[in-house]
Amino acid sequence: MTDASLLAEHLIAAPSVTPATGPVFDVLENMLAPLGFAVHRFLEGEAPDGPVENLFAIRQGPPGSRHFAFAGHLDVVPPGEGWTSGPFAPERRPAPGGELLYGRGAVDMKGAIAAMVAAVAAVPPETGTISFIVTGDEEGPAIHGTRALIAFMRDQAIRPDLCLVGEPTSVNRLGDTMKIGRRGSVNIWLAVEGTQGHVAYPQNADNPIPRLVAMLAEIDALTLDEGTDWFQPSNIEITDLEVGNPAHNVIPAKATARISIRFNDLHSGASLSDRIAAIAQRHGGTARPVVSGEPFLTPPGAFSRLISDAVEAETGIVPEASTGGGTSDARFLKDLCPVIEFGLCNATMHKRDEAVAVDDLATLSRIYARIALAALHPQAAG
Amino acid sequence: MTDASLLAEHLIAAPSVTPATGPVFDVLENMLAPLGFAVHRFLEGEAPDGPVENLFAIRQGPPGSRHFAFAGHLDVVPPGEGWTSGPFAPERRPAPGGELLYGRGAVDMKGAIAAMVAAVAAVPPETGTISFIVTGDEEGPAIHGTRALIAFMRDQAIRPDLCLVGEPTSVNRLGDTMKIGRRGSVNIWLAVEGTQGHVAYPQNADNPIPRLVAMLAEIDALTLDEGTDWFQPSNIEITDLEVGNPAHNVIPAKATARISIRFNDLHSGASLSDRIAAIAQRHGGTARPVVSGEPFLTPPGAFSRLISDAVEAETGIVPEASTGGGTSDARFLKDLCPVIEFGLCNATMHKRDEAVAVDDLATLSRIYARIALAALHPQAAG
Repeated sequence: MTDASLLAEHLIAAPSVTPATGPVFDVLENMLAPLGFAVHRFLEGEAPDGPVENLFAIRQGPPGSRHFAFAGHLDVVPPGEGWTSGPFAPERRPAPGGELLYGRGAVDMKGAIAAMVAAVAAVPPETGTISFIVTGDEEGPAIHGTRALIAFMRDQAIRPDLCLVGEPTSVNRLGDTMKIGRRGSVNIWLAVEGTQGHVAYPQNADNPIPRLVAMLAEIDALTLDEGTDWFQPSNIEITDLEVGNPAHNVIPAKATARISIRFNDLHSGASLSDRIAAIAQRHGGTARPVVSGEPFLTPPGAFSRLISDAVEAETGIVPEASTGGGTSDARFLKDLCPVIEFGLCNATMHKRDEAVAVDDLATLSRIYARIALAALHPQAAG
Repeated sequence: MTDASLLAEHLIAAPSVTPATGPVFDVLENMLAPLGFAVHRFLEGEAPDGPVENLFAIRQGPPGSRHFAFAGHLDVVPPGEGWTSGPFAPERRPAPGGELLYGRGAVDMKGAIAAMVAAVAAVPPETGTISFIVTGDEEGPAIHGTRALIAFMRDQAIRPDLCLVGEPTSVNRLGDTMKIGRRGSVNIWLAVEGTQGHVAYPQNADNPIPRLVAMLAEIDALTLDEGTDWFQPSNIEITDLEVGNPAHNVIPAKATARISIRFNDLHSGASLSDRIAAIAQRHGGTARPVVSGEPFLTPPGAFSRLISDAVEAETGIVPEASTGGGTSDARFLKDLCPVIEFGLCNATMHKRDEAVAVDDLATLSRIYARIALAALHPQAAG
């Protein structure tokens, strides 16, 4: 089998802080083309959210065969300071549990992309159609990334049967966790307007702060739900307050706040936005929502079993099906087909000295190969 | 009688945006010295709250005679934009109700200082001791102003029997209002500390905002009192909120607020600070109070009657005894002796095109002369 850690080194060596374009995509294209993939690349968006490079690669199987998609991203978060070795100079160093490969993106998620390529090299083309959906902006605003790839695929009438996202879902050991869903996310800006005045003459002013405080107290007291079989309870956090009044003796004219709601599939971004807006209005304020993702759930079934079986065969571990944590591009890919996320251990992601166990890369590539083979089997569900 | 409006012009022509030093005090010294006053001037404080110039002038009466003090300030608030004539170029212009004198400080309170000087010129030295307590910082932080003058007087064992502050207390017509008290003022900075974290993992964070919101809701629901015979009810205003968290997906580590309490003589700055601190602590927060003034009240009696009689004799109006509005240097002077404030109409104070009716200056100087004569009378109370 192709050595996933060597492929990962090549990807890490091409700096690609989000939004990513160019060289790192050249590296991936040069890996996929020899494996028989037709590679389509395009730039999308303009500064400050772009340009973003996107890559869609497809290796057609026999007519009528199934289609399995690997999805992921090549952009990385900024390395920050204090690395032991260069963040874009991949370095292997021995460690008690086996050799580690250091570099920004080692686990999130150039390592997983490398494992996907190594896996595909082990899957015969006649097994079925395989595609790669890879963006250069998952870590940033994600406006011109996977969404543009989905639009590209729709234009070409390309629709996979199943999709695996290679996000680092494992927590303590490779294989312990897969994500079968993610909560939705909405941020809502709240504002209350009043009338400025002198604190000594409150009768001539209208202080907006008590109304904002009452509004926030009511929002904070909400219980959105008790959770579901697959999701934890939806949660509201007040993330900002702002008046910005330097004058001690002045009643301000405006008070604002921001809340962030992570919600399960009992709600939608719109239903929560409406509910908060009604509370805001009752207190004489306004609410401006920005929905950054709807919840998704691929209920446990044939697809998750297929992944679980592949993980157990290679690691002896039965992965837990989780819906916790933040959002990912699965929030967009769910519109294409059933989607599940499975990948490396996330302990060092986004941190200084991000590193992956070299053994884990080899194991992950074998797991991915098993998943692709099972997903492309004519009797596979989904 | 000396023309108060000419004296006012000289004072206005010396720019003296707070904190004031130098020329404007030269002008006043040159008015008082010929009237037999010993003038003491000193600088106090350093940048940014100083230096501040202070002037204490005294004309000793016969041994055993009473001592009456005029108090006030020569600093002015910044003129701002858009004046019809220069803010420090005094200009008389005709108006329907009689000639007006324009200039920054015309009513607050160079006009009143001029009226005091004109009044004193009409009071024979043998009537008793008269002093001027005049600072260059009443409009600013007021740290190095009247407080320093009081310390100076204490060092010299000088203690007036009664003190009149020339703040512009009249509202619609000269004579309609005097201030026999002022509310106290305390600003309290509230803070709640928590633990920063990602909104997707609230179990790993501790959001300080809900605790601040609950704290503020409890504070906002307080009724401090129902007012007294002489004071309106004490009032709390929340004047600022601050988190300053630009990241939508981050639970912040700290949330702060500021409140401003104007309170009557049922409370002290310390009692209110303690009460708010207890509420803050109950919600896991802290409170940092800054008391900028304790309430003062000179209960209606001989001194207020003396002023009322003088006002009525010159204007036909019986002034209302008020304790409303903001603070003034009377909050410090009350520690010396009974203090009451009476002065010009305040409609244009702190505004563009500040102006005083020339007739009012003449009337005010006659009122001040009556007050001084009555206050120095051997049978005067207080």
